[in-house]
Amino acid sequence: MQKPREYFAGRYDVVVIGAGHSGCEAALAPARMGMKTLMLTMSLDSVALMPCNPSIGGTGKGHLVREIDALGGQMGLAIDKAMIQSRMLNTSKGPAVHSLRAQADKKKYQTIMKQILEDEENLDLVQGEAVDILTENGKITGVLTKTGARYDTKSVIIATGTYLKGRIYIGEFNYEGGPSGLFPSNDLSQSLKRLGIKLKRFKTGTPARVHKDSIDYSKTEVQPGDEEIVPFSFLNDKINIDQVPCYLTYTTEETHEIIKSNLDRSPMYAGEMESVGPRYCPSIEDKIVRFADKNRHQIFIEPEGLDTKEMYVQGMSTTLPEEVQIKMYRSIPGLENVKIMRSAYAIEYDCIDPTQLKRSLEIKNVENLFFAGQVNGTSGYEEAAAQGIIAGINAVLKLRGEESFILDRSEAYIGVLIDDLVTKGTNEPYRMMTSRAEYRLILRQDNADLRLTEKSYKIGLASKERYEKVKYKKEQIEKELKRLKNIVVTPKKEVREFLESLNSSPIKAPTSLFNLIKRPELSYDSLKDLDKDRPDLPREIRMQVEIQIKYDGYIKKQLKQIEQFKKMENKKLPKDIDYDAIKGLRLEARQKLNDIKPDSVGQASRISGVSPADINVLLVYLEQQKRLKNRSDNND
Amino acid sequence: MQKPREYFAGRYDVVVIGAGHSGCEAALAPARMGMKTLMLTMSLDSVALMPCNPSIGGTGKGHLVREIDALGGQMGLAIDKAMIQSRMLNTSKGPAVHSLRAQADKKKYQTIMKQILEDEENLDLVQGEAVDILTENGKITGVLTKTGARYDTKSVIIATGTYLKGRIYIGEFNYEGGPSGLFPSNDLSQSLKRLGIKLKRFKTGTPARVHKDSIDYSKTEVQPGDEEIVPFSFLNDKINIDQVPCYLTYTTEETHEIIKSNLDRSPMYAGEMESVGPRYCPSIEDKIVRFADKNRHQIFIEPEGLDTKEMYVQGMSTTLPEEVQIKMYRSIPGLENVKIMRSAYAIEYDCIDPTQLKRSLEIKNVENLFFAGQVNGTSGYEEAAAQGIIAGINAVLKLRGEESFILDRSEAYIGVLIDDLVTKGTNEPYRMMTSRAEYRLILRQDNADLRLTEKSYKIGLASKERYEKVKYKKEQIEKELKRLKNIVVTPKKEVREFLESLNSSPIKAPTSLFNLIKRPELSYDSLKDLDKDRPDLPREIRMQVEIQIKYDGYIKKQLKQIEQFKKMENKKLPKDIDYDAIKGLRLEARQKLNDIKPDSVGQASRISGVSPADINVLLVYLEQQKRLKNRSDNND
Repeated sequence: MQKPREYFAGRYDVVVIGAGHSGCEAALAPARMGMKTLMLTMSLDSVALMPCNPSIGGTGKGHLVREIDALGGQMGLAIDKAMIQSRMLNTSKGPAVHSLRAQADKKKYQTIMKQILEDEENLDLVQGEAVDILTENGKITGVLTKTGARYDTKSVIIATGTYLKGRIYIGEFNYEGGPSGLFPSNDLSQSLKRLGIKLKRFKTGTPARVHKDSIDYSKTEVQPGDEEIVPFSFLNDKINIDQVPCYLTYTTEETHEIIKSNLDRSPMYAGEMESVGPRYCPSIEDKIVRFADKNRHQIFIEPEGLDTKEMYVQGMSTTLPEEVQIKMYRSIPGLENVKIMRSAYAIEYDCIDPTQLKRSLEIKNVENLFFAGQVNGTSGYEEAAAQGIIAGINAVLKLRGEESFILDRSEAYIGVLIDDLVTKGTNEPYRMMTSRAEYRLILRQDNADLRLTEKSYKIGLASKERYEKVKYKKEQIEKELKRLKNIVVTPKKEVREFLESLNSSPIKAPTSLFNLIKRPELSYDSLKDLDKDRPDLPREIRMQVEIQIKYDGYIKKQLKQIEQFKKMENKKLPKDIDYDAIKGLRLEARQKLNDIKPDSVGQASRISGVSPADINVLLVYLEQQKRLKNRSDNND
Repeated sequence: MQKPREYFAGRYDVVVIGAGHSGCEAALAPARMGMKTLMLTMSLDSVALMPCNPSIGGTGKGHLVREIDALGGQMGLAIDKAMIQSRMLNTSKGPAVHSLRAQADKKKYQTIMKQILEDEENLDLVQGEAVDILTENGKITGVLTKTGARYDTKSVIIATGTYLKGRIYIGEFNYEGGPSGLFPSNDLSQSLKRLGIKLKRFKTGTPARVHKDSIDYSKTEVQPGDEEIVPFSFLNDKINIDQVPCYLTYTTEETHEIIKSNLDRSPMYAGEMESVGPRYCPSIEDKIVRFADKNRHQIFIEPEGLDTKEMYVQGMSTTLPEEVQIKMYRSIPGLENVKIMRSAYAIEYDCIDPTQLKRSLEIKNVENLFFAGQVNGTSGYEEAAAQGIIAGINAVLKLRGEESFILDRSEAYIGVLIDDLVTKGTNEPYRMMTSRAEYRLILRQDNADLRLTEKSYKIGLASKERYEKVKYKKEQIEKELKRLKNIVVTPKKEVREFLESLNSSPIKAPTSLFNLIKRPELSYDSLKDLDKDRPDLPREIRMQVEIQIKYDGYIKKQLKQIEQFKKMENKKLPKDIDYDAIKGLRLEARQKLNDIKPDSVGQASRISGVSPADINVLLVYLEQQKRLKNRSDNND
C-alpha cells in the first residue's frame, strides 16, 4: 500500500472514527457538550447503516435505548421518527421486563440520523478512512487518514463496528469486505496492534433479504403492531403512524434436513472459520445443531422499509452457501417460491478484548483513546449506541479534567453492559438481556429518565428541556403518591359496595388509597370513582404511581440490596495498587487484578478467577492501608 | 482469489450486469417486452446512484432524456418525481437547442428507481458481482458471480459504468475502488479480455461535496428554477413542487495561482495517470491550463437533496491532493470558510473501444453480448441511459429473431450518439451536445414523442397509453395546421387595424393565418382575436403548431437534406464484404472498413480514414454487385 503525503487537515477536541450506531452517539455527545468534534466515516452514504435487522429495541435492548435517550442521546428520537411498527414486548410479565421494540424504515433512519449529525454545530462530518492513530508518550495526538489528512486531536473514539479487517463468508467462499459491499478497514487494525492493543476475531451473520411479492402470506401469521404506540424518547408524547405488519412462520423438518446434510459446507462447521459468533443470535445451523430436539424454529419476516420490497428473514442467518440457502428458505411455509435479493452471509472482524478498557471506555495503555460499540466485542445496534454515548461523555470529561461518568450496575443497564465488558470480558459477541441485570425491578425501561436524566444534565449533555420535563414528572409522581397516602377511605356502605363491584373484599379499618391499590385485583385507574379529587394525570405518571405502589415491597427490598452492593462499590481500589505485593492473594487473582485494575472491591468481586477468599484478603488490605494512612495523618 | 464452487442459480432470457443509469433502462426494457430478466448489482444500496452531479438533463442531454422517455424508458419519469428544481436552458435561442435540466434529490431518485425495478414483474433484482461471462461457440450461455452462482441466459448486457478495475486518484495517492467507497469489479475485466474484447482506460472526476452551512451565500448569485416547470416525461402534464435554488460564484486569480503552483501534484500532469478524461467536463486544473487567458470560471453550487446538507460544487472537479483542494475551494467568493465533507477525486476505469460494437450495441465477436453506458466510453447519466434502453431493446429483438432497432442520425440524438460511438470510436469520454446533431431542427426535445413513440410501440416497449397519447397529439397538430391554412383573412379594415396594433404591416391580398404566423412579429397566440373559431388547445400542441409554422421553410430544407442522407444510409453494405478484395480502396480504408463493418455507405462515409474517393469506389462496387446479381437472377 502506497503511503500518502501527510498534511495538516484540522484541529479537534475529539475525533470519532466510524459513523454507525456507536459512532453517531459518540460524536453527538461531545459536540453537544461543546467540544469541537470530527466524525470520520469511510462512506457518508453509510451513516447509521443498519446492516442487519430492521428494528431497534427488544428485550433488554429496549431498556438501553430508553437509557440512551434519558442521557440525551439520539437513537430514541431517530427511531421514533423512522418507525413503521411498534410493540411493547413481555407485557404479560412484570414491568421490569417490559421492553419496547420497533420496526425501522432503514433508509429513513439513516437519513434522519445523518441530518441530525449535519445540523450539529460543533460537529464536522467528513468522508475519510482513518489508517493510523497518532500518539506521543502514550497519549493521543492525532489521526491520519488514507489520503494523508492529519487531524490533530486530544481525544479519539474508535467506533469501527465490524469493519476492522472484515472478511465475508458465504459457504466455502470468503473475501475481504465490510458489510453491505463496502471496503473493510485493514490499516487501522495494524495501527491498533502497533499501540499494543490486543485484538481478537469475532463473527456475526445476517440472513437473506427476499422479495416481498415472492411470499405466500396466507401460510404465515400476521404480526401487527400495538394499538397504542409508546414512543422510545421521553421527549415524545405520542406517535401516530400507519403501522405495517410483520409475518411469522416456522422452519420445517425439511429445513432441518437440508441444513444437517450440508453442515460440511458451512465454514463454521468445516473449521475454516474459528472466530466466535453471538450465542444469543445464532445462525440457523447453530440452532439446528444445538437444539437438536426442537422440530421447528420461529421465523419472522420483516419489511426493510416502506419504499422497498426487500424483506428481512429474522431467524435465518447462515453461513451456508447460496445454493443451500435458497433450498432451505424455500422449505419454509410461505417461502416456497421465495426470491432472494441479497444472500445471507457471515462477517468476521477484528475487535478488542474489552478488559483492556477502563469503565470510562478509555483504553488503559493509551491516554484519551476510547473504544465503543461492536469493536469492543458486543453485538447489536443498541449495545453499540449505549457505549457510544458513554465514550463520548467520558472523552469530554477527561479533557475537562473531571471525574469519569460511570453508571454502576444498580443505576442502568448501560452500567451492567460496561461493567460486564471491562470486568469479565467476553468470549462471544455480547448481547444485553434483562437477566444480566441484578436490580431489574429498579432498572425499568419506564423510569430511565427518572434514573438518568439529571445525572446527564449535570455534566452538560441532557438539555434543559429534558431536565425540566423529568423534574416536573418526578414532582407530579411524588405529589400523587403523597396524596394517595393521605386520602383515607372508611369502611362505609358505598366503599364496601364499590369494592364489591370490583370483586375486592371489604375493608375493616380506615385505609389509604395507596394501600388499596396494592391489592392485586385493584389498580390506580380502577379506584378512580372512589377518588373524587383525583387530578387528571398523563399516562406515564399514572403508570409510575401504579408501579411504585404495586411493587412497593419488592422495590424497597431491592433498594436495600443496592445499598449492600454500593458498600462494596464504594470501597475504592487505587489504580496504583501492586497486587503482586498483597500477601494471601492467589496467583490467578493477582494476575487478573493487575490486568483489570478494578475501581472497587465490588468490581473486583465480579472478576472471574477472583474468589470470595481473595476479596476478604483485599478488604483486610484496604483496612490496613486506612489505618496506616490515619496514623500518618495523625503524625503530621 | 479463491474460486467459488459453481451452482445453477436460475435461467433467464437477459442478464443485465450493473444497476446504474444504463443498467436500469437496459433491464426495464427487456422485462417490459416480456423477457425474463435478471439484474445483477454489486450493491442493492447503489441502484441508480448518481456518483457525480445532482442533476439530469442539460444541453443535448435533455434531448436524450426526452427520447428515452418517448421510447418508454424510466429516466424522465423518475426525475420528474425526484426533481427539486427545473430549468429550460437556451430559451433565448431557437427551439432546436432548448434543453431541459433538473436538479435531483439524489437519494429520492435512487429510491424511486429501485422501487420501479422491484415492482417490475419480469425482472429479478439480485445483489451479486458478475465475474465471468460464459460463452459457447462465440455465443452467450451464462454469467458466473463471485459467489459461484451460475445464471444460464441467452443474452447479457454489460452496464458496469466506471467499476471495471476502478482506481481512485486523489493527488499523489491512488487506490483500487469504485465510486462512493464501493468495491471495483476486477474479475469481470479479465473475463472480457479472455473473450478477445479490447479494453482501454478512461478517467472521470467529481468535485468535492461541501457543507451547506459553511457557505456565505451573500457572495453568490441565486439561481432559481423556472416559474413553470416543463416535465421531462411526455406522460406528465404538470409538476408542482417548491423549488430550491442553486448558487453561482466564480474562481478567482488566487484560485488559478493555487492550481498553477500545484500542478505537479496532479497525477494527470505529473504523468502518473495516462488515461483520458472528458474534454467537455474538464477538471478545474484542465480549464486553467487550457484556457489560460480566462481569469475566472463559473462555479455552481447545487444541493444534493432536500434531506442533506451536502452541496455539490459544479465546475471544481479535480485530481489535486486534498490539502490543495481545500485551499482552492476557499479562494472562491462565498466559500472562504467552506467545509469539505467529501473530497474531489478522479476515477480511472476500463472501458471498451466502442467500434467493436454493432449499431445494435451488440459486440461483433460474441453473439448476444451487449454493452451500454460508460463502459462504452461515454460520460453522463443520460448518455448511459440512452444506450441502456437501446441495448435492452436489441437484446430482445435479437432473441426474437427480428431486425435490430436502429435510430439513425436523422431520427434521434440517440442515433447520433450510437453512430458516433460505433463508427468513429472515441478517444475521451463522449458527451452529447446539440452541435453533434446535423439535423437538430428536426431532432427537437419537444417532439421526441412524435418522432419515436410509435416506433417503440410497434416493437412492444412503449405502452398503449403512450402511443394513444402521441397519436392524438399528432392528430390535433395536423388538424390545427390544416385549419390555419384554410382560414383566410382579407385586407379589410378590422384586419388592418388588428395587424397595426401588433406593429405588423397590412396584408394586400387574402392571406391564411398559417402564413400570417410566419411573420416574425406575430405568433400563434397573438393572432387569437383574429381567429374566432380557434379551439382551446393545450400548451404543447400550440407550441408544436407555432414551431412547425415559424420554421416551415427551414424544416422543409432540413427534411430534403435528410432525404439525401437517407439515400446513402439505404445503400446497405452486406456484413460479409471482404474489403481487402475491393480494388481501389486505400489501405487505411480497407482496414477501417473491415474493423467497423458499417451497415451502409452512409455509415462508411463517417469513418475517419475513409475518404470521399473510397466512398466512390464503394458505390461503384455496389453497383457492380447489383448488376451481377441482376444478371444471375435473370439467368435463373
